Amino acid sequence: MDQSKAPLYESMVLHREQTTTSFHVPGHKSRWLNPNPHLNQDRHVFSGAFPREILSIDFTELPGLDDLHQPQGAIQEAQELAAACFGADETYFLINGSTVGNLALITALCAREDILIVQRNVHKSIIHGLMLGGVKAVFLPPRWDVQSGLPTGVTITDVEYALQKYPEAKGVMLSNPNYYGMGIDLAPIIALSHAYGKPVLIDEAHGAHYGFHPDVPASALSCGADAVVQSTHKMLTAMTMGAMLHVQGSLLNREAIRQRLSILQSSSPSYPIMASLDLSRREIHKHGAERLSQGLEAIHYLQLQLQTNKTCSSFLLLPYRPTSSAYETQDPFKITVRDTTGTLNGFELKRELERHGCYGEMADQHHVLLVYSLASQKSDSDHLIQAFSRISGEYGLIHKPHTAEISLTGLFPQHTGVSLPIEFNMEPLNLYKGAKSMNVRTIPVQDAIHTFSAEMVIPYPPGIPVLFPGELITQHTADYLQRLSSSGASFHGTQDACLKTIRIYHNITI
Amino acid sequence: MDQSKAPLYESMVLHREQTTTSFHVPGHKSRWLNPNPHLNQDRHVFSGAFPREILSIDFTELPGLDDLHQPQGAIQEAQELAAACFGADETYFLINGSTVGNLALITALCAREDILIVQRNVHKSIIHGLMLGGVKAVFLPPRWDVQSGLPTGVTITDVEYALQKYPEAKGVMLSNPNYYGMGIDLAPIIALSHAYGKPVLIDEAHGAHYGFHPDVPASALSCGADAVVQSTHKMLTAMTMGAMLHVQGSLLNREAIRQRLSILQSSSPSYPIMASLDLSRREIHKHGAERLSQGLEAIHYLQLQLQTNKTCSSFLLLPYRPTSSAYETQDPFKITVRDTTGTLNGFELKRELERHGCYGEMADQHHVLLVYSLASQKSDSDHLIQAFSRISGEYGLIHKPHTAEISLTGLFPQHTGVSLPIEFNMEPLNLYKGAKSMNVRTIPVQDAIHTFSAEMVIPYPPGIPVLFPGELITQHTADYLQRLSSSGASFHGTQDACLKTIRIYHNITI
Repeated sequence: MDQSKAPLYESMVLHREQTTTSFHVPGHKSRWLNPNPHLNQDRHVFSGAFPREILSIDFTELPGLDDLHQPQGAIQEAQELAAACFGADETYFLINGSTVGNLALITALCAREDILIVQRNVHKSIIHGLMLGGVKAVFLPPRWDVQSGLPTGVTITDVEYALQKYPEAKGVMLSNPNYYGMGIDLAPIIALSHAYGKPVLIDEAHGAHYGFHPDVPASALSCGADAVVQSTHKMLTAMTMGAMLHVQGSLLNREAIRQRLSILQSSSPSYPIMASLDLSRREIHKHGAERLSQGLEAIHYLQLQLQTNKTCSSFLLLPYRPTSSAYETQDPFKITVRDTTGTLNGFELKRELERHGCYGEMADQHHVLLVYSLASQKSDSDHLIQAFSRISGEYGLIHKPHTAEISLTGLFPQHTGVSLPIEFNMEPLNLYKGAKSMNVRTIPVQDAIHTFSAEMVIPYPPGIPVLFPGELITQHTADYLQRLSSSGASFHGTQDACLKTIRIYHNITI
Repeated sequence: MDQSKAPLYESMVLHREQTTTSFHVPGHKSRWLNPNPHLNQDRHVFSGAFPREILSIDFTELPGLDDLHQPQGAIQEAQELAAACFGADETYFLINGSTVGNLALITALCAREDILIVQRNVHKSIIHGLMLGGVKAVFLPPRWDVQSGLPTGVTITDVEYALQKYPEAKGVMLSNPNYYGMGIDLAPIIALSHAYGKPVLIDEAHGAHYGFHPDVPASALSCGADAVVQSTHKMLTAMTMGAMLHVQGSLLNREAIRQRLSILQSSSPSYPIMASLDLSRREIHKHGAERLSQGLEAIHYLQLQLQTNKTCSSFLLLPYRPTSSAYETQDPFKITVRDTTGTLNGFELKRELERHGCYGEMADQHHVLLVYSLASQKSDSDHLIQAFSRISGEYGLIHKPHTAEISLTGLFPQHTGVSLPIEFNMEPLNLYKGAKSMNVRTIPVQDAIHTFSAEMVIPYPPGIPVLFPGELITQHTADYLQRLSSSGASFHGTQDACLKTIRIYHNITI
């Protein structure tokens, strides 16, 4: 297959170059704004001058531009090129993020009340898939990295225990790597699941670049996964919401997957997003290793500077390669940094970096996560070093005592052991005012110990739920959430975005 | 409220203007492509030069840019301005099209096996919502316009019959206007439903511009609807996939709606799409009537030209105002045209227009639908007149006999009367290979009479299902589908996009 082609994007450029008139949607007719020349004067004071370049390719299902929901032309060809490039049997372009890939996989694999074996520390979209499908989850606990206090992947022992105990389970769903780039060796776990006849679904949202460079871990597809969801926008170069779902083998019903995708994705998909998937595939295929090397050079430069620049000596990067038994692979593009003097917690360090123009991906109590990509440059590292130096000077960090170790107590609620099947559904919150809303009360988090949560509590980022609706709030969890809240974390799923208060079921206490 | 603000877009422009470095997703770092200058040479032969303007505002949840799933800043303000502008109590920005608005409303209002009273001829996303939620639908038949043979809206008599017969129904869901701009008088129907204590949900995908000009019909919100979904990208100027869900009153549980939206929309929503919603709102608020008048001028010019230009005399436009009792309102921006000599059917006329550079929205057997908007100009009408003249000349249309009437036989399967509750769910297609796939067979459409369809058959556009899974295929329906197929229609939901064949349950025949 000719990977130098970008069939969808080329079709769109061809259409743009023709002299055509639009008597179809979108309403902006690719010429908005502004249709009225005399109104252009104030465009630099926000007259609404939306970049015209965007609208010029914001097409719809025109002849020659194919149809995502019934692909037969340019989109089909673009998806086939992507499948060949990433090593799948079949690839589906997603325009509603990895979110919709996870929702479609779970609802396609599992009927209501079916059991799915699921890693506990997964993105909320997987939990949402369980809710949407009315699926029962058998949760696998993550391992814990002692140096960072972060949860990583599951153990093969737990997977085997669950497969043995729940032979009726429809499959196994894991997330790999985690947000910080820590990953596990998937191949033996997938081989084991296949020995039990069960498909393995991998949320590889953070690993679309995996397998394209010797310094980057192997892809989940190359480890034998049956279905893999990748956020092409995260570590490759697609527009935000652009993602891919890859499938291989014969354990999954692809027709059901396609049907779920057609239900859960807009019937008017965005062509710029689809075209950006086409171009990302071509770019990574043609120049992948070279481009990734450029990004890695910027990272090596950062590491070298941090080691030699004494003004930055209080800032510690997590190791480039795994050092604990909690994980086997590390994405070199994820840079996790900590102030070892303990002066600035993760949230504070992130804000300080922003003050100096360096915008990180995420913070937790201790760390800031900085995401490099193949589009990163050495000058980015220079900017970062400069920011570290200034922060260091402003807070006098080099004169303070450093500790390489952090206290691990209460870093994350510990969930040990494989769970019993937990039933998920959409019922707790029902639109038409009914009886159940009477049972929910909003109280301060410190008063919520030993009650049952009425909401899903999701620190965001990373979007991994800490509490599910109906789950017991332990002393440990309440302490952890209060620490997160007072450190400045944001929350999804909750009524109170700062989580000073939490909603609980007040008629169920123990 | 200061409607001249565009808080989200302005925040994004401000962020772009700062000197910042991205250590976060998206991976394109707003600078892709191409990072490597020597590769720029071939950019005009599709080197992957994706419009840089797009990436320059393709942001993520950065400080100051708020968070769609927990809005507290610019997005909250933008949504509040939209609510005030469109006349809602609360507005939610949608980045997965009107599709996700319909899915969220149905799954929020109805628990599994609840009954919803639903107009039969609705967009497939409403049917998908019923499937996703496991909801039972009581279908209301449309009225039929005798001049065009097109289905329009429901009758108040049928609504009242359904409300009386199914007092347990959770609400009423209607689509208005239809794709061709034909609409009904919603106010009395909504008042009636409210008298029964039932909320009314309106899919107003094609009517985002309603209420902003005296020549355009009233909006569903102004008629009292409890929830309204609008495709802001269709008739206003947002990017494709940009839509809004408006709610008012106290009959709906907004928290449940918000929760469904957070489940069904990407956790990485597209900022360009959200910003385009913000700008569309500002534009329609500030210059709505003036801009719509410009579009209407282009339409009046077309009408005048068609009346006076004899070379176009065989092309008939549907009336600008309703003429039958099948509908009470007509969107003047929807131009439905027909070759009255019967030489070119709708699909053929659409292709001929495309050959002359005029791209229409949709065709049916008889008509081509041309969509104007507030961004249309007189020169668009000139292009169209020129195309009509040339087509007329090439086919010698003015020398052929004209008929203003079309044969109405078999134009659309007739569904008369209010249906019994029909149960929808996701079960027929289950991913893990099971027994049910054995019962499905693919056969030619002409052989499928008196069997039960195993797929949803959706001519697209308009995306309104003709057959549901499990529905009996009558002689009438089979004939209609064969005519559509041989005229060149495309189909969604089916294995065969051309519908030469159809899948049926072969163990259920009568």
